[in-house]
Amino acid sequence: MQKTNSGNFFEDFKLGQKIAHATPRTLGQGDQALYTALYGSRFALQSSDAFAQTVGLPRAPLDDLLVFHTVFGKTVPDISLNAVANLGYADGKFFKHVFPGATVSAHSEIIGLKENSNKQTGVVYVRTDGLDEKAERILSYVRWVMVRKRDAAAQVGAPHIPELPDAVAPEDLRLPPHLNFDTLFEKTLSGSSHLWNDYEIGETIDHIDGVTIEEAEHMMATRLYQNTARVHFNQLSESKSRFGRRLIYGGHVISLARAISFNGLANAFTIAAINSGRHVNPIFAGDTVFAWSQVLDKWAFPHRRDLGALRLRLVATKNLPCASFPDRDEKGEYPQDVVLDFDYWAILPR
Amino acid sequence: MQKTNSGNFFEDFKLGQKIAHATPRTLGQGDQALYTALYGSRFALQSSDAFAQTVGLPRAPLDDLLVFHTVFGKTVPDISLNAVANLGYADGKFFKHVFPGATVSAHSEIIGLKENSNKQTGVVYVRTDGLDEKAERILSYVRWVMVRKRDAAAQVGAPHIPELPDAVAPEDLRLPPHLNFDTLFEKTLSGSSHLWNDYEIGETIDHIDGVTIEEAEHMMATRLYQNTARVHFNQLSESKSRFGRRLIYGGHVISLARAISFNGLANAFTIAAINSGRHVNPIFAGDTVFAWSQVLDKWAFPHRRDLGALRLRLVATKNLPCASFPDRDEKGEYPQDVVLDFDYWAILPR
Amino acid sequence: MQKTNSGNFFEDFKLGQKIAHATPRTLGQGDQALYTALYGSRFALQSSDAFAQTVGLPRAPLDDLLVFHTVFGKTVPDISLNAVANLGYADGKFFKHVFPGATVSAHSEIIGLKENSNKQTGVVYVRTDGLDEKAERILSYVRWVMVRKRDAAAQVGAPHIPELPDAVAPEDLRLPPHLNFDTLFEKTLSGSSHLWNDYEIGETIDHIDGVTIEEAEHMMATRLYQNTARVHFNQLSESKSRFGRRLIYGGHVISLARAISFNGLANAFTIAAINSGRHVNPIFAGDTVFAWSQVLDKWAFPHRRDLGALRLRLVATKNLPCASFPDRDEKGEYPQDVVLDFDYWAILPR
Repeated sequence: MQKTNSGNFFEDFKLGQKIAHATPRTLGQGDQALYTALYGSRFALQSSDAFAQTVGLPRAPLDDLLVFHTVFGKTVPDISLNAVANLGYADGKFFKHVFPGATVSAHSEIIGLKENSNKQTGVVYVRTDGLDEKAERILSYVRWVMVRKRDAAAQVGAPHIPELPDAVAPEDLRLPPHLNFDTLFEKTLSGSSHLWNDYEIGETIDHIDGVTIEEAEHMMATRLYQNTARVHFNQLSESKSRFGRRLIYGGHVISLARAISFNGLANAFTIAAINSGRHVNPIFAGDTVFAWSQVLDKWAFPHRRDLGALRLRLVATKNLPCASFPDRDEKGEYPQDVVLDFDYWAILPR
Repeated sequence: MQKTNSGNFFEDFKLGQKIAHATPRTLGQGDQALYTALYGSRFALQSSDAFAQTVGLPRAPLDDLLVFHTVFGKTVPDISLNAVANLGYADGKFFKHVFPGATVSAHSEIIGLKENSNKQTGVVYVRTDGLDEKAERILSYVRWVMVRKRDAAAQVGAPHIPELPDAVAPEDLRLPPHLNFDTLFEKTLSGSSHLWNDYEIGETIDHIDGVTIEEAEHMMATRLYQNTARVHFNQLSESKSRFGRRLIYGGHVISLARAISFNGLANAFTIAAINSGRHVNPIFAGDTVFAWSQVLDKWAFPHRRDLGALRLRLVATKNLPCASFPDRDEKGEYPQDVVLDFDYWAILPR
Repeated sequence: MQKTNSGNFFEDFKLGQKIAHATPRTLGQGDQALYTALYGSRFALQSSDAFAQTVGLPRAPLDDLLVFHTVFGKTVPDISLNAVANLGYADGKFFKHVFPGATVSAHSEIIGLKENSNKQTGVVYVRTDGLDEKAERILSYVRWVMVRKRDAAAQVGAPHIPELPDAVAPEDLRLPPHLNFDTLFEKTLSGSSHLWNDYEIGETIDHIDGVTIEEAEHMMATRLYQNTARVHFNQLSESKSRFGRRLIYGGHVISLARAISFNGLANAFTIAAINSGRHVNPIFAGDTVFAWSQVLDKWAFPHRRDLGALRLRLVATKNLPCASFPDRDEKGEYPQDVVLDFDYWAILPR
């Protein structure tokens, strides 16, 4: 009897299939400490219990992306062990803050399948819910991923591509419970005086700083999330791959770019939604990451004077400072220095 | 007055000598978080408080090997600072789970001494007990190690080699208190449907995955255990050694191989005993570790329907996938790609 | 409106200016676990809750230097983002132990300014207080740093150099509350039988061990402290610098040397003061750090039989063992192998 998991292939997935993923994970203060050491994140809400308490929370919540990557990691053994490429994210919603001591688990549903014309691969669309130990939803998102077929000759069902929104509608954004900036918020402590009111649609921000990635860092991060995708860990096999190198987990780049974006967006405390995201080029140890942001939209929560949301596009590059905001060309093609195009809603004090 | 510790030499040890080792260590959730980041361990019992509570424990225990390496680390300044080689382990028993917040310390007794014929070195056999803050035994094991003599001419006592069992008798295995799989165990969460009943004596499992080791990782791990063996840290001196490189701590390889063995042994939650262990070849940063296991024996705990033990042999290689189960030849010689041969009892739900 | 922080330049600072620094930080057991993994620190007081409780504390305090580096890190975005060199420390006092769960923040005052004759740079003297969540002072120190001018033509005020003591007077040392070595102190557990009485003024100690630094380690450490100084992280820009390499944060070297000094000073549990400190040569990944200490002074706390203080000079080198105590020459010039000259008061059981 086969004891090991070699992962699912494209023809193994069925439309509507539900998967409960393995290995629930209790995240604690130690995980947040490692997250800080890996990215240097400085958002005051996640950094300080005392600060979090002044704005209504019981203590500092875990970084939203630490939670996101942990949920994502649980899906890898079932969804993407035989993936060729992680193609995109959509319709990601964060429902509440997660605090140290919570146990995170993940459930998924296959919501779309489309074989590629070469019959070698197909695209799997999956919606994943992250749950806490009370089985309450923490977050929910869709990703699609190109997965190899075990057998090119295998028959598969009719293609089904799900309808996915370009962005989460701001009316659908959920404010984390208890968060309240009406009172004691000290801008000095957060590192910036720029609040929601100070940002304009269309505005771009070069986050200036660059950070070089080491092999030990991205592997420790990816293991922290219990993400087992092989391309990140095995230099022996990757030395024979197209790139000859271990690939860095895309989520590592999202977190690094988000931490770099503190310089310019220090009050963008909480991620409320992931509208879309693409890892547009691979990135490797030794590369230096830079980032810039653009304000795509603004939303003032009704009945709240204290909080607003910004829709932000976070673009990360490798080995290219972002003073000139490197971007897609007219045909939508990305320069090879751009590695990430990530569209999200963040919540800021107004 | 000499303030620094240069370690004991072979002639410093006396048969029956007892040593209380320095630096008690409180292990917490942060240590477990680092352990996860270093090895990617995914055993549900250690990963999730909620899962641990469904099987009778107050919360997730620390990884057994994190505790073992911590106890081992305490012995290094007294036992093996002048070691040439760590030769083997035997008769290792784990008495109970250790939970975050426990303080671990170590006591040892010299149970055997044998000078080598070259008079330059000798073998020290030592039994070490790991204790918690209530002075209760957590674990106990024997290791033997080749230690340099300070002075080849020094007279030493008659050789004494202790009787050591080939393996811990299954009747002697101690079940961790409170562990109970009779009730709510969800196989989906653990990552495998294969329970004790599904494994057969003689069965071999290739754990498939390979993981490359970086210098920063093995040094951080070894320091986490407060293990001060010099060969792991000092490239300046090691550059002049036989290998020209920093050696990786053997325990790092055990933990990496154990984490890799999750893929095939996801329900082997708890280590009950270390029967024997040998680091048969050195391993260095840049090497990629693979592992395979063999079921050597099975034991059904009397009066328990829910739990059984498997005696497992865990073999790790460097830069060689294990699909063909690389092993000793007829003469008992290991190929140079094999780095670890580790024999242990694990506890599984039946 | 400029959203990003490019840091202050010399002409931006005013004598007497007070700065509340951003990003309070709650330090927890996970941060201490990382600190242990990064440096291998083994001082029993910080390592073990049980040991700390035998000497009067509620639990193990965080490492003093973890707290110091965290406070220091908060000052970087305001003080030294445009620094050419960190020139020195003085008059550093530690007022109390900090325990996991405390939230650390930092306030500074500009106490001295002196433009350099080249008009390109000037020296900024700053006193920084580290505070806890009750706004009680944890520590206080002065550093001075050479900062670039934005505009060489900018007019600046008259030079003012503050009076700074060569060393903190022993009468001013503050004993951490509750610490008491009268009773149950077990020397076996601390790793050394050498107490305050056993050290003599003038005595030198070679700490023997060497530790090689990796890029991933110093970057993780520096991010753990939320220190954003660019020279540590960005290989793309540093490749064009004078050294062609990322510089290692000086505090990383202090912590490494302090951990190495355990071998010879195992009972020097607590840092009471930083008298002075200089990073006399740069150090890079791949370098191996060694250290030696000299006893400069001794102080017996009045009304206390159990505790004394040693004034210690901790000298660290790169790629040079310290058996011959490498030091300044008669002209006060350091050999290029010496990287740190650090003068501090430590508290020991008498």
